[in-house]
Amino acid sequence: MTISTPTPDRYARGRDKLAEVDGSAGEEVVDSLGDLGRHIVEYAFGDVYTRPGLSLRDRELATVAMLAAKGGCEPQLDVHLRAARNVGLTVDELREVLIQVAPYAGFPAAINAMRRLQALEPQEAP
Amino acid sequence: MTISTPTPDRYARGRDKLAEVDGSAGEEVVDSLGDLGRHIVEYAFGDVYTRPGLSLRDRELATVAMLAAKGGCEPQLDVHLRAARNVGLTVDELREVLIQVAPYAGFPAAINAMRRLQALEPQEAP
Amino acid sequence: MTISTPTPDRYARGRDKLAEVDGSAGEEVVDSLGDLGRHIVEYAFGDVYTRPGLSLRDRELATVAMLAAKGGCEPQLDVHLRAARNVGLTVDELREVLIQVAPYAGFPAAINAMRRLQALEPQEAP
Amino acid sequence: MTISTPTPDRYARGRDKLAEVDGSAGEEVVDSLGDLGRHIVEYAFGDVYTRPGLSLRDRELATVAMLAAKGGCEPQLDVHLRAARNVGLTVDELREVLIQVAPYAGFPAAINAMRRLQALEPQEAP
Amino acid sequence: MTISTPTPDRYARGRDKLAEVDGSAGEEVVDSLGDLGRHIVEYAFGDVYTRPGLSLRDRELATVAMLAAKGGCEPQLDVHLRAARNVGLTVDELREVLIQVAPYAGFPAAINAMRRLQALEPQEAP
Amino acid sequence: MTISTPTPDRYARGRDKLAEVDGSAGEEVVDSLGDLGRHIVEYAFGDVYTRPGLSLRDRELATVAMLAAKGGCEPQLDVHLRAARNVGLTVDELREVLIQVAPYAGFPAAINAMRRLQALEPQEAP
Repeated sequence: MTISTPTPDRYARGRDKLAEVDGSAGEEVVDSLGDLGRHIVEYAFGDVYTRPGLSLRDRELATVAMLAAKGGCEPQLDVHLRAARNVGLTVDELREVLIQVAPYAGFPAAINAMRRLQALEPQEAP
Repeated sequence: MTISTPTPDRYARGRDKLAEVDGSAGEEVVDSLGDLGRHIVEYAFGDVYTRPGLSLRDRELATVAMLAAKGGCEPQLDVHLRAARNVGLTVDELREVLIQVAPYAGFPAAINAMRRLQALEPQEAP
Repeated sequence: MTISTPTPDRYARGRDKLAEVDGSAGEEVVDSLGDLGRHIVEYAFGDVYTRPGLSLRDRELATVAMLAAKGGCEPQLDVHLRAARNVGLTVDELREVLIQVAPYAGFPAAINAMRRLQALEPQEAP
Repeated sequence: MTISTPTPDRYARGRDKLAEVDGSAGEEVVDSLGDLGRHIVEYAFGDVYTRPGLSLRDRELATVAMLAAKGGCEPQLDVHLRAARNVGLTVDELREVLIQVAPYAGFPAAINAMRRLQALEPQEAP
Repeated sequence: MTISTPTPDRYARGRDKLAEVDGSAGEEVVDSLGDLGRHIVEYAFGDVYTRPGLSLRDRELATVAMLAAKGGCEPQLDVHLRAARNVGLTVDELREVLIQVAPYAGFPAAINAMRRLQALEPQEAP
Repeated sequence: MTISTPTPDRYARGRDKLAEVDGSAGEEVVDSLGDLGRHIVEYAFGDVYTRPGLSLRDRELATVAMLAAKGGCEPQLDVHLRAARNVGLTVDELREVLIQVAPYAGFPAAINAMRRLQALEPQEAP
């Protein structure tokens, strides 16, 4: 197993990764969620996102697919569509991910997610 | 919009892509599902998987994440974990995808999916 | 609003409707579930299934679609596929319902439900 | 297996069926969804809705039940409640379908769907 | 099994319990839902909430956790967060319940529920 | 915000809490899940379960309700039904929790969870 770093470094490392991935949208979220926000910074970003075995691009690709398939997580999908762009996914690639969602989660999930992508990137043709 | 090919070619193209991605596991599934199986071949594989905008590796990464997050789709997760290996994802990468599932869908979803990966690749240490 | 009947009649009316719809499969379920089983008899069957505004055929069509779309309810889907046959839906119609599930809930949900229909009616070609 | 028609006819047949079932609400949806919209027209409407084994009324009954049970698909539920009326389901029958949802998916799902029906048909008493 | 009371008393007992638990927010809901509302009063409140084996505090704790974990039930979560306060749960306890949701249903579910608690109790620091 | 303890203590504290709550069933789970198991120990048990604002009894009550409502998490429900007994919930109380699940998540979810409770406590009448 990997060696965990002392907690103050975990929080700092999580904040750094959060800023790199989600930018200001993510920081606003965690700063207004008290201890729940701290868990997100430490565990999701400090422990998971910093792991070397999968790139940030791949992590965001998986996360966008998951949130779209689940449905009902539109606020998080909005943050992660921006994060996906931050880490190098193109709008065309994100459109393809959402087209990939439809056979596995149905058209409603794919449509509702595609609307969020369209809201984020209105100048791009669907 | 892209030009759609005539139907007999769509079915054939879908079968080719299905064999490339899912191998024999996927072919056994669709051959025993009548018209539902034909729709999977034509639409999921003939229309979606053949699209050039996202690699097969990325498509399987998204699909594994979706199926794990949803839960209750273990038969399909088994097929797609094998498909993911077929198209170049390593076991380490798949393990990372499932670790990425936990913050977004909870530990139960991640654990239940990890058990399927362990069943597929028993010789690899978790 | 309709007039509710006194409770002993509600339970009896629910038992009658349960036997009509689910047959012995449903009765075995409720008899082994204590007060939860009594609520199913009184509310689901005594209050809902006896309502005149929708036929038993339509109620089972909706129920099979719902259980297939949700996934993870295979024991209940098994009972309701039999119930659907009891109230006049044909195997061909049930196959069409499950094909209708796929665009709205994805192929995994449709496939997993189709396997239960195939288990119930093995002599019918998919 | 049935014989598939050449693609241009599938798209045209899908558009015809979409207009018959969903009217203008559905057409606006697919025309603003690029290739995802084309897949909906060709596969959902061209391949599934045109199948003869289940009436449009039965297909919409199943679809309304599924969308209500899943939750989180309110935009699609709105379109399909209108479609259900287009193909002959009465408001009373739709109300009964949503009452049927409650024992299987819980009261929250049934209530949230009933609110959409009330928004569509405000002049009808709940 | 317990002895059920005649129906008019069940409805009255349900109304009493509904008023005790949900206050006016719950009463407004059921009064605008016709027969679906009557089922909620009779079964959920008349039959389940009146059962002596679990306190109202415990029932609301479970209900808030369930609605948060499921997601997409924000109207019901709003009613039950108020109900939870009515029956003695503190805001701090409710915050802890939502923090408990995250490992089991993921951070999106926990965040979206926490936002509803914050909307209900804005003067309390997160 | 609370002060986080250095990581080695977090892991140890998490292991202690895991043993107190889940006993050997939980320990077997985490020990066979590599880094995912470590995250469960550190975050779920080290950071969440040790928080003083909600008792272990209340945490398990919420967790059992969530897992039952979600469905498809039977392995985790089995572990947490045992954990609930460990921290002081009686079988009668757990039966009431599952009866409480039905109005909010439907009878299928409640039935499938009740079967797991019956499997755990076979000598107790349903």
